[in-house]
Amino acid sequence: MSKLYFRYSAMNAGKTTAILQVANNYEERGMNVLLIKPAVDTKGDNKVVSRLGIDREVDILLSAKDTVLPHIDSEKVDAIIVDEAQFLTPKQVDELFYITKTRSIPILCYGLRTDFQMKGFPGASRLLEIADDIEEIKTICRCGKKATLNMRFVGGKPTFSGSQVVIDNGEDNVTYESVCGECYLKKKNNAKK
Amino acid sequence: MSKLYFRYSAMNAGKTTAILQVANNYEERGMNVLLIKPAVDTKGDNKVVSRLGIDREVDILLSAKDTVLPHIDSEKVDAIIVDEAQFLTPKQVDELFYITKTRSIPILCYGLRTDFQMKGFPGASRLLEIADDIEEIKTICRCGKKATLNMRFVGGKPTFSGSQVVIDNGEDNVTYESVCGECYLKKKNNAKK
Amino acid sequence: MSKLYFRYSAMNAGKTTAILQVANNYEERGMNVLLIKPAVDTKGDNKVVSRLGIDREVDILLSAKDTVLPHIDSEKVDAIIVDEAQFLTPKQVDELFYITKTRSIPILCYGLRTDFQMKGFPGASRLLEIADDIEEIKTICRCGKKATLNMRFVGGKPTFSGSQVVIDNGEDNVTYESVCGECYLKKKNNAKK
Amino acid sequence: MSKLYFRYSAMNAGKTTAILQVANNYEERGMNVLLIKPAVDTKGDNKVVSRLGIDREVDILLSAKDTVLPHIDSEKVDAIIVDEAQFLTPKQVDELFYITKTRSIPILCYGLRTDFQMKGFPGASRLLEIADDIEEIKTICRCGKKATLNMRFVGGKPTFSGSQVVIDNGEDNVTYESVCGECYLKKKNNAKK
Repeated sequence: MSKLYFRYSAMNAGKTTAILQVANNYEERGMNVLLIKPAVDTKGDNKVVSRLGIDREVDILLSAKDTVLPHIDSEKVDAIIVDEAQFLTPKQVDELFYITKTRSIPILCYGLRTDFQMKGFPGASRLLEIADDIEEIKTICRCGKKATLNMRFVGGKPTFSGSQVVIDNGEDNVTYESVCGECYLKKKNNAKK
Repeated sequence: MSKLYFRYSAMNAGKTTAILQVANNYEERGMNVLLIKPAVDTKGDNKVVSRLGIDREVDILLSAKDTVLPHIDSEKVDAIIVDEAQFLTPKQVDELFYITKTRSIPILCYGLRTDFQMKGFPGASRLLEIADDIEEIKTICRCGKKATLNMRFVGGKPTFSGSQVVIDNGEDNVTYESVCGECYLKKKNNAKK
Repeated sequence: MSKLYFRYSAMNAGKTTAILQVANNYEERGMNVLLIKPAVDTKGDNKVVSRLGIDREVDILLSAKDTVLPHIDSEKVDAIIVDEAQFLTPKQVDELFYITKTRSIPILCYGLRTDFQMKGFPGASRLLEIADDIEEIKTICRCGKKATLNMRFVGGKPTFSGSQVVIDNGEDNVTYESVCGECYLKKKNNAKK
Repeated sequence: MSKLYFRYSAMNAGKTTAILQVANNYEERGMNVLLIKPAVDTKGDNKVVSRLGIDREVDILLSAKDTVLPHIDSEKVDAIIVDEAQFLTPKQVDELFYITKTRSIPILCYGLRTDFQMKGFPGASRLLEIADDIEEIKTICRCGKKATLNMRFVGGKPTFSGSQVVIDNGEDNVTYESVCGECYLKKKNNAKK
């Protein structure tokens, strides 16, 4: 039996850097890693790209209707890593849980918990419910406190309505910043006035 | 700004014991604690009862339609503790988050993540999404591994269908045991045969 | 292979309560626990006593010259729990590490990190160096922050010199309180004036 | 009051990568970081170098006799990060603790716990005793379990005697690998034969 890990954080905390490091750790020891990214994340195409300037090709670009198991039958896999795991479907998360218990392959999922409106991403919420191990990758708010929420800026202005998924790939004038709960509520209150 | 904590575990891990200890720690230092229990949990009536034989009266039996804020206006409260927090409504969880940020009162919620069918309790799922701090209270499966899931027994037999909430208060012949993912899936597989 | 756990905290956080709960968790599942207390801790004699009013007899009162292995050969032991683990010798800690790796018995040690002068207890320092898993049992300072240090009071006055081990068993007029780093340094500074 | 953090791991887990990411997180938010490396670590000279191929110049190369405070008086510092913190002296660790409490600057120390003989590094042992927050950066052993110990290889052979500090900078034919407790004890046992 292996574990399903969920390592969550607010945006831009360093999840992809952590993934690149973990993949490297496995490979330095002669082990094989399968790197998965949900296809809905269009940033970086078929790569995961860290803000530190390093990247890596993904092994599977996973669509919402895909299952994971067929991809791991044919090869030796010592660990599975999932980037942007909040974009998994709950059903895919259940399948990952099942794989860890029946195939003894550890699966490490990295992702956000909530969107810019503090609504849970369905894949993240499912991971939080059933992951064997939940760990936080910490980052800081501009005020110095721990950041746990994600603020969306459109044209530089804090925004509190819109569709759940807008990738900050340079189009649409959208950027994100991770903030603490207090700063989030203050900005939201100001936006109402 | 204070933090909203979610300390989760499988059943019978010692959540209520932990609550009694934390309340005691605050009071030993001359601080006041407000102890809340959702009214849907009928076990122990207006008390929280630890399996170690110790108990404590709750300050608020919270119905699903209640808000918490009116209860804390009139008195000095240094910390709020919630037992069986999985039974909170998501809206109540949002209110607790709001209180920690605007009143600087730390709130410590203790509860389960999922029911006997591995479905999330709505209050727990919301806590997992927005709590500032998530910690696990660990317990063990009979096989020696960490237990993360809850198995329902009806008349001593593992059961995988039924309503989400059946309190193990001696009626209905229902008991629960915390198990690891592997043991859960094996029992479920056996039950199908 | 099993793990050597060190669950540390400041004084009066609830370590003994946690031990009583964990022992209960094992026994509810039909497993056997061996409870060890270093003999230097004279409080409660051959019992561990929680501030919540519950207690339990220890299986082994361990002297500094004792080894643990002879005590576990003859019986079935599913887990070993050590209270006041800061009073173990570093050599005993090394033996516990060895037992977890060669006998596959998990060992859970509970104890303080430092004394009233912020000096490490030798047994605790060794546990911190080699434990497979380090977890904190949190408690609060009177100021509301997390307490991590231990203040000794003699006749109610903060005291910063004396021998490392003085048990607060009612004699000697000695009591302890857990405080945060800031409060500790302030009191120490005041005491110098 | 700020916190003194100790984020420990076995060798080659990704400490330097984590440091580069954290420094980047602060700077993306317009904050200033002071990066310290004990001078005894000669690898990379005045840089910290990650195995992923990224690096960063250190702000202070700290000798064992240096104090930190004079370096932070003259400038605005939002956070201090220490690489290879196991090479700090215990006295320097005490100073860092003092700075976090009196200057409200968070200090994040990254380092090993023990050397290739399972002996604690004095700086690491002190950090473990008094850090406000202890976190593990996990990595894996070749066997798939969590690695917590460091094995030294001389000319490719596991070695269990020698001086505590030999930097793996390409000279001396020395390399290191992180291993779990079970693999460490097995190799050590084999080496005796």
